[in-house]
Amino acid sequence: MSSHWQTFYETQAKPDNYDEQMKLVRSFVQSHLDQKVALISSGGTTVPMEHNTVRFVDNFSAGTRGSVSTEYFLENGYAVVFLYRWKSLEPYSRHLQGSQILDSLDVIQGDVIVKEESKSKLLQIITKYQKVENENRLLRVPFTSLFDYLWFLRGICTELAAFGPKCLLYLAAAVSDFYIPSEQMVEHKIQSGGGPLSITLQLVPKMLVPVTTSWVPHAYVISFKLETDENLLVQKARKALDTYKHKLVIGNMLQTRKSRVVLVTQTEEKEIILSSEELKKGGEIEQRIVEDVIRRHEQYLADR
Amino acid sequence: MSSHWQTFYETQAKPDNYDEQMKLVRSFVQSHLDQKVALISSGGTTVPMEHNTVRFVDNFSAGTRGSVSTEYFLENGYAVVFLYRWKSLEPYSRHLQGSQILDSLDVIQGDVIVKEESKSKLLQIITKYQKVENENRLLRVPFTSLFDYLWFLRGICTELAAFGPKCLLYLAAAVSDFYIPSEQMVEHKIQSGGGPLSITLQLVPKMLVPVTTSWVPHAYVISFKLETDENLLVQKARKALDTYKHKLVIGNMLQTRKSRVVLVTQTEEKEIILSSEELKKGGEIEQRIVEDVIRRHEQYLADR
Repeated sequence: MSSHWQTFYETQAKPDNYDEQMKLVRSFVQSHLDQKVALISSGGTTVPMEHNTVRFVDNFSAGTRGSVSTEYFLENGYAVVFLYRWKSLEPYSRHLQGSQILDSLDVIQGDVIVKEESKSKLLQIITKYQKVENENRLLRVPFTSLFDYLWFLRGICTELAAFGPKCLLYLAAAVSDFYIPSEQMVEHKIQSGGGPLSITLQLVPKMLVPVTTSWVPHAYVISFKLETDENLLVQKARKALDTYKHKLVIGNMLQTRKSRVVLVTQTEEKEIILSSEELKKGGEIEQRIVEDVIRRHEQYLADR
Repeated sequence: MSSHWQTFYETQAKPDNYDEQMKLVRSFVQSHLDQKVALISSGGTTVPMEHNTVRFVDNFSAGTRGSVSTEYFLENGYAVVFLYRWKSLEPYSRHLQGSQILDSLDVIQGDVIVKEESKSKLLQIITKYQKVENENRLLRVPFTSLFDYLWFLRGICTELAAFGPKCLLYLAAAVSDFYIPSEQMVEHKIQSGGGPLSITLQLVPKMLVPVTTSWVPHAYVISFKLETDENLLVQKARKALDTYKHKLVIGNMLQTRKSRVVLVTQTEEKEIILSSEELKKGGEIEQRIVEDVIRRHEQYLADR
């Protein structure tokens, strides 16, 4: 059985930088109270196997869905709290991974310059990035472990409640369903001398319960569902809506997540598909998803 | 019990891009046969829990030790095969993580330029990077899973045997001691409906055995040992040397790995310590490690 969500917070220590980060969140909230705000979670959570953590269980996610979507929410005027796995993809800098940036620069007579062929791409990115920075519309809150993530999720939601229905939650992070509670975790690196290793993971409490009923009861809440078995996708999305009574589940298959998603509400199912032509031209399915979601959010605000 | 290493390769499929990558390795080897070569492994390996992998066990490593050391080996004239975890730190680009690069650029009258205050740092990085690229002295081979890593380790070692004692192995990757064999792995994402999750991991065969006895018997082989319990560190380093008869174990504690390592050989123990003063000034312990290691490699070549 999963423990109750309150027990989780009572027994799993908060992150060392929690108070400091939450101060930044509160200051960000104060600056944007007249705007629409989105909390976007992104990347996978780690589940430590040792207190001095050498090994951990992780969930597959590069942070693409969250970081790309964040750019489109920002372009559409939202203020965004980006709750992301430390070192996963971030908005804007995601376009310049690995040695791409090194290949965009050159040295001419002892001076560092941007190569001509890289200028138009960089111009677009830097222009958008600087606009957002100047307007202070993006707050990044990094996490690594499942514990960090759940502490910040609660903390940030509680602050965002002030936005009422103007708040949107876009929970794209790949959050572990299982964890090893602190008190069951060993202190030091597990040694390999002892033969095969058996570990038992407990169920993580379903945090969509307090999200929708207690922390941000008026927000427009969207959760994500990743499956590898097509037969389970819509069925599980529907089950989540029935259980948590939130607004929208965005379902996708691991294998086709960049070209197809299905948006499931209480009353409808809608597919968004990007053709291989569109993908080849650099199209991003997140642009279409975010446009659709923003329309729904506006309708939600109008209906109230 | 761990299975024999040969059984591992017979039963765990090779990576899809194996043949293609090994072609690049062979071509790289041919260009540098007159030089000293280092195989540097870096970053953590993943151990998939499902064939369609959503969850995996990972080993903590940002790839700092490997990527920083690679720069110093390159500065000292080595050709380097950098076998690294995909998306972990890479030489040169490691200096420009996250939004650092975005903050180094500016837009003036529609033109993208490098900010004055960023120029001297970027000048150094780009100059070194371009020299290495022009001399074709760095080959990057990415891996993600333990399976990828072990396949490439064997493949690359076999090719590097041609260098005889001029080959150095600097095995800094954080390689899992445990894995779930393909035939015991489930097909689809593990569902959370079934309550707590128990998994059993098998021991990975100790690949230093074939490395030192069969694949590159004349190479100068260095392995790394990371512990969280100080009492185990030197004792385990010594045990590894006794078992595998290689040249050097570099031991470090998780908590102090950036400021202290201990180099353990059959006959001596030597500490390298960076003071907090040196760390503050941007000093990197890898510079001192690599200088020491290169001296040992030269002595090894001279003694033969």
